[in-house]
Amino acid sequence: MPVDDRHRLRPGPLEPPRRLLLGPGPSNADPRVLAALARPLVGHLDPYFLALMDEIQELLRYAWQTDNPLTVPISGTGTAGMEAAIANLVEPGDGVLVAQNGYFSLRQAEMARRYGARVATVERPWGEVFELDELVAALDEHRPALLALVHAETSTGACQPLAGLAAACRERDCLLLADTVTSLGGVPLALDADGIDAAYSGTQKCLGCPPGLAPLSFGPRAVERLERRTAPVGSWYLDLSLLAGYWGGGRSYHHTAPISMNYGLREALRLVAEEGLEARWRRHRDNAERLWAGLSELGLDCWVAAEHRLPTLTTVRVPDGLDPKQVPARLLAEHDIEIGGGLGELAGKVWRIGLMGTNSRPDVVARLLAALARVL
Amino acid sequence: MPVDDRHRLRPGPLEPPRRLLLGPGPSNADPRVLAALARPLVGHLDPYFLALMDEIQELLRYAWQTDNPLTVPISGTGTAGMEAAIANLVEPGDGVLVAQNGYFSLRQAEMARRYGARVATVERPWGEVFELDELVAALDEHRPALLALVHAETSTGACQPLAGLAAACRERDCLLLADTVTSLGGVPLALDADGIDAAYSGTQKCLGCPPGLAPLSFGPRAVERLERRTAPVGSWYLDLSLLAGYWGGGRSYHHTAPISMNYGLREALRLVAEEGLEARWRRHRDNAERLWAGLSELGLDCWVAAEHRLPTLTTVRVPDGLDPKQVPARLLAEHDIEIGGGLGELAGKVWRIGLMGTNSRPDVVARLLAALARVL
Repeated sequence: MPVDDRHRLRPGPLEPPRRLLLGPGPSNADPRVLAALARPLVGHLDPYFLALMDEIQELLRYAWQTDNPLTVPISGTGTAGMEAAIANLVEPGDGVLVAQNGYFSLRQAEMARRYGARVATVERPWGEVFELDELVAALDEHRPALLALVHAETSTGACQPLAGLAAACRERDCLLLADTVTSLGGVPLALDADGIDAAYSGTQKCLGCPPGLAPLSFGPRAVERLERRTAPVGSWYLDLSLLAGYWGGGRSYHHTAPISMNYGLREALRLVAEEGLEARWRRHRDNAERLWAGLSELGLDCWVAAEHRLPTLTTVRVPDGLDPKQVPARLLAEHDIEIGGGLGELAGKVWRIGLMGTNSRPDVVARLLAALARVL
Repeated sequence: MPVDDRHRLRPGPLEPPRRLLLGPGPSNADPRVLAALARPLVGHLDPYFLALMDEIQELLRYAWQTDNPLTVPISGTGTAGMEAAIANLVEPGDGVLVAQNGYFSLRQAEMARRYGARVATVERPWGEVFELDELVAALDEHRPALLALVHAETSTGACQPLAGLAAACRERDCLLLADTVTSLGGVPLALDADGIDAAYSGTQKCLGCPPGLAPLSFGPRAVERLERRTAPVGSWYLDLSLLAGYWGGGRSYHHTAPISMNYGLREALRLVAEEGLEARWRRHRDNAERLWAGLSELGLDCWVAAEHRLPTLTTVRVPDGLDPKQVPARLLAEHDIEIGGGLGELAGKVWRIGLMGTNSRPDVVARLLAALARVL
């Protein structure tokens, strides 16, 4: 067979620039995590890998503060975790209530529609959070089978309080699904104590691992819903009843697990366990407060009220008269620092600054503030 | 918030054993690919990463011998590639014909059903391939909108001839979808010359990269089908019209790309381009023939007839009276060599030996044959 060489590029070696990643994610991975990625492969049914899977599951339970047996990394990015949660919990015709106050809750609603849900929403302006009362009123009005919300909204920097919500959902036979992409490993969160029935996250934020896996946890009420399904899950790749056959006891083949990414996740979770959750949450909080004080000294305002601000992701109001793209572009070009622009309704209105995982450090805050001062 | 330490494991450093991976995949990654995984992260909208995406797309076009603009790595494993192809090409009620002669065509049929297809099958015993005539007769009988088949069946070791099939599909306004998971980069294949409308693969076989990404390519007729859809794609994560907004010109955010895995894929494809496809195909063929000759000397028979045997994956008939699990278990425990057992209908009947990517080498064949001789 004659071979056509038109597309035969001959690029040079991989030489990525050294960036300080302070946008909404990915954040920089810890050097130990990057080193883990490069370890030699084993097979996905190798006894060594099966033991490593158990360790990852147990360490995820620690990070999420849950006993849920069904706690696994989905083989895709955070968005695949969101879709896995919704695809498995929603049957065609189910009522789903989405608490919509940012980009990622919009996405939850869109996914729920694709899986056949009747979607209702309760809405708040981007950057605000919901009061318990208004969520309970919406539950009573719509009587959904599932309430989906975002604990840590990466598009707005707001942290949704959860107190009292789980009890209200249970009383109404409604499951509570929380997006914890920007909170797992950085913001106080305890799935079992908070009464969250299902949650998903990503590896590239506060866990400090590259993007590519999506931790997911289903509690007993979510598993019961899964077992009672009458329609098959729309997605085969994300079907948890099949995935549980591999991650559970049977170890039956479903798909070839991404070995190297699981090496990285294990190392990232090992770092979480070494540091301890309290210390880690405190560190994220302390460095966020350093950042907020410094921003204030530069005359910059945060978008979110102080009491609902995420320590892991800060939205900064773009000062009047400034081109919103210029500051991120100059930080990248002149200082090798990435920050994010606004997304969706906040496009052009905010910058997004992440201090997550290994990047939540005083020296990182100082470097960013110094660069910002020069650029502004 | 009080933290519960019951799940706070303190595992030791990651120390995977050094395995020679000669099963159905993953195969060992080239050391250059593993080193690429450990390079520092950049953001998924960083100019450096956007240029790298273009390189990956172009190198995938070379490896697949296609001009298809829509040639991308899906952010999941090979199974996600299969689901992406089917989810985007199938609308509820569409007729899909599956040429079923192994485990992975069974899976294609199951996925097509989940996306609402009316599935018909034409069947052959596992390990055999289809004649053109019988596929054409099945096309005439069922008049499907899509014919799905497996070019390189990882469960059986058979390679499906493609000559004449594309023309027959075109005449009947039927799309041709091929699973090329175990052929891309190891077995002669040219999407455009072969007239394949859509194909998917995995990174962990002949490309010699860890598992975690699924190359996918859609030709003009598949793109036209995508554009004519009336129902939204069932999966949001795998919706190619959204993904094309990121991989195409617009670079609009869909999900956070797995940066490190794309580093690895670029390096793996760079190795393919350096070696050249003809040389790479010849190498896989030559080493397979070495293996087959050696197996024959050991008195072992191959499951598939010589003319339809894949050079990348060989199924070996388990000799009568042998415990089928014992030989793979001893090869792993005593020689650090992984080979695979049979899957589905061939469970207990065959072993599966992969010689893929960097593992397709004379010294690897010699090491395996020597170990097999000791174990048998």
